[in-house]
Amino acid sequence: MIIVGGTSTNGVDGRLSKLTGYPLVKVESKLFPDGESYIRIPASLDGEEVVLVQTTQPPQNKNLLELLLTLEAIRDMGATKITAVVPYLAYLRQDRRFTDGEALSAKTILNLIHAAGANTLVVVEPHHRESMDYFPGEVRIVDPIPSLAREARKRVERPFVLAPDRGALERAERLAKELETNFSFLEKERDRKTGEVRIRQADIPPLNGYDVILVDDIISTGGTLAEASRIAYSSGARSVISVAVHLLLVRDAMNRLREAGIREVIGTNTVVPEERVTLVDVSDQIAVRL
Amino acid sequence: MIIVGGTSTNGVDGRLSKLTGYPLVKVESKLFPDGESYIRIPASLDGEEVVLVQTTQPPQNKNLLELLLTLEAIRDMGATKITAVVPYLAYLRQDRRFTDGEALSAKTILNLIHAAGANTLVVVEPHHRESMDYFPGEVRIVDPIPSLAREARKRVERPFVLAPDRGALERAERLAKELETNFSFLEKERDRKTGEVRIRQADIPPLNGYDVILVDDIISTGGTLAEASRIAYSSGARSVISVAVHLLLVRDAMNRLREAGIREVIGTNTVVPEERVTLVDVSDQIAVRL
Repeated sequence: MIIVGGTSTNGVDGRLSKLTGYPLVKVESKLFPDGESYIRIPASLDGEEVVLVQTTQPPQNKNLLELLLTLEAIRDMGATKITAVVPYLAYLRQDRRFTDGEALSAKTILNLIHAAGANTLVVVEPHHRESMDYFPGEVRIVDPIPSLAREARKRVERPFVLAPDRGALERAERLAKELETNFSFLEKERDRKTGEVRIRQADIPPLNGYDVILVDDIISTGGTLAEASRIAYSSGARSVISVAVHLLLVRDAMNRLREAGIREVIGTNTVVPEERVTLVDVSDQIAVRL
Repeated sequence: MIIVGGTSTNGVDGRLSKLTGYPLVKVESKLFPDGESYIRIPASLDGEEVVLVQTTQPPQNKNLLELLLTLEAIRDMGATKITAVVPYLAYLRQDRRFTDGEALSAKTILNLIHAAGANTLVVVEPHHRESMDYFPGEVRIVDPIPSLAREARKRVERPFVLAPDRGALERAERLAKELETNFSFLEKERDRKTGEVRIRQADIPPLNGYDVILVDDIISTGGTLAEASRIAYSSGARSVISVAVHLLLVRDAMNRLREAGIREVIGTNTVVPEERVTLVDVSDQIAVRL
């Protein structure tokens, strides 16, 4: 087994190599002046089983293309089995048609990763587990919630887990179970024209004296979590922190979260944003799935 | 037959529709805040033959991903046959291994376009015709040299065609034949470490009194053509213009070309750069290949 470290790994490739003892080869890459990517794998892979590590954090399109180029190069070089470790897999949220004629980006991306050569795909916390069925090969899903729970536990005394929308409810349940505490959720409405999000306060129990932990899979602009935080405080919360797996944090997301009183933003190194956040390493969880 | 206009067409989709009489549907698209693309095709394509127009000019990775997303959506919607018209197809230059372990981006991209649903691929002037054999379906190559020759003819009195390197020699021959004139080529050396390009003056005939037409498939940084222009003037050329198919013109390419005395830059609308150049429409040539 050989581990190939792609152009975007956040150090997971090196840690996997240390944890498993498999040798690590880093791809060489450059950008041509016109913006095309060049990839080279300085190793002999003929007859080898290969694990490629490449996360598709922003810039997603570049990192995805480089994932696909690298996969096909590995296959061309004679690898017998290819496992793609993609800690954050972009484009998974569009996995059903809300309106006729929509492209199902999740299906396309999963098919392309297979077409480029991956037999097995390892992904950390996909948006919907069911959408992974679009991958024609074997899928292994890594659950980072236990590690995130351990990190959150250090920050709070009286935890209560709150999902900002129904989609995060199952995650809230898993996190609450790890923390041996209770959980609830808010109802989110998205205006399909403007894209604006409003939260309708459902039957939230009084949160007086609780340290609320908001949970989600992805933080993008932070709008949903910021509004959830305000509702938590208005329901009596003593403090609010957020736990999410993939911290995209686009635009001024961090400011929005801070202004809404979120005291700490905890995530994983599937995505490494520029902002100062607490990141839990997912390498251990991935290593046991190889 | 239905023509679907992608997110990047330079107007070729509309002109194809007018030339052929086939109805045109434009895709709807937007960017999510985190940078992912959303695509929707507002039409019924069930049982239809579909022609998708999408050029992959810069930003290449975004336009390529959108090409792939749109292709799979068209297939999902029940199209019986899909022809992808990709006037400029990016990533074709890396089509052989100069060093072990290099990714063959041409092969990967051509395989992915097929995997996403294209049965037939129409491309204008690929870098090497042979590399199109990597596409597992039918390939139709559009030759823009006759149209470019007509445009160049208006600019010059005593044309002489000069290829800036051996790779452009066959193009120079085709252009010279259209213009019923002579041609020659320069020898280019690329320093494999620095990427710098030098031209060795080969046996160029004296160019005294000639209007030299430099020809290439792609202008990227313009370095090669700028040096070729200087050599042409030092060999007695009266004027120099350039004819190339795909005008990427990255960075300060236009300034480099102008400073080297290139009086006019002629290309096609496979790529539409920001700079002021003369662009020949390729729609007619594409229409006859559908």
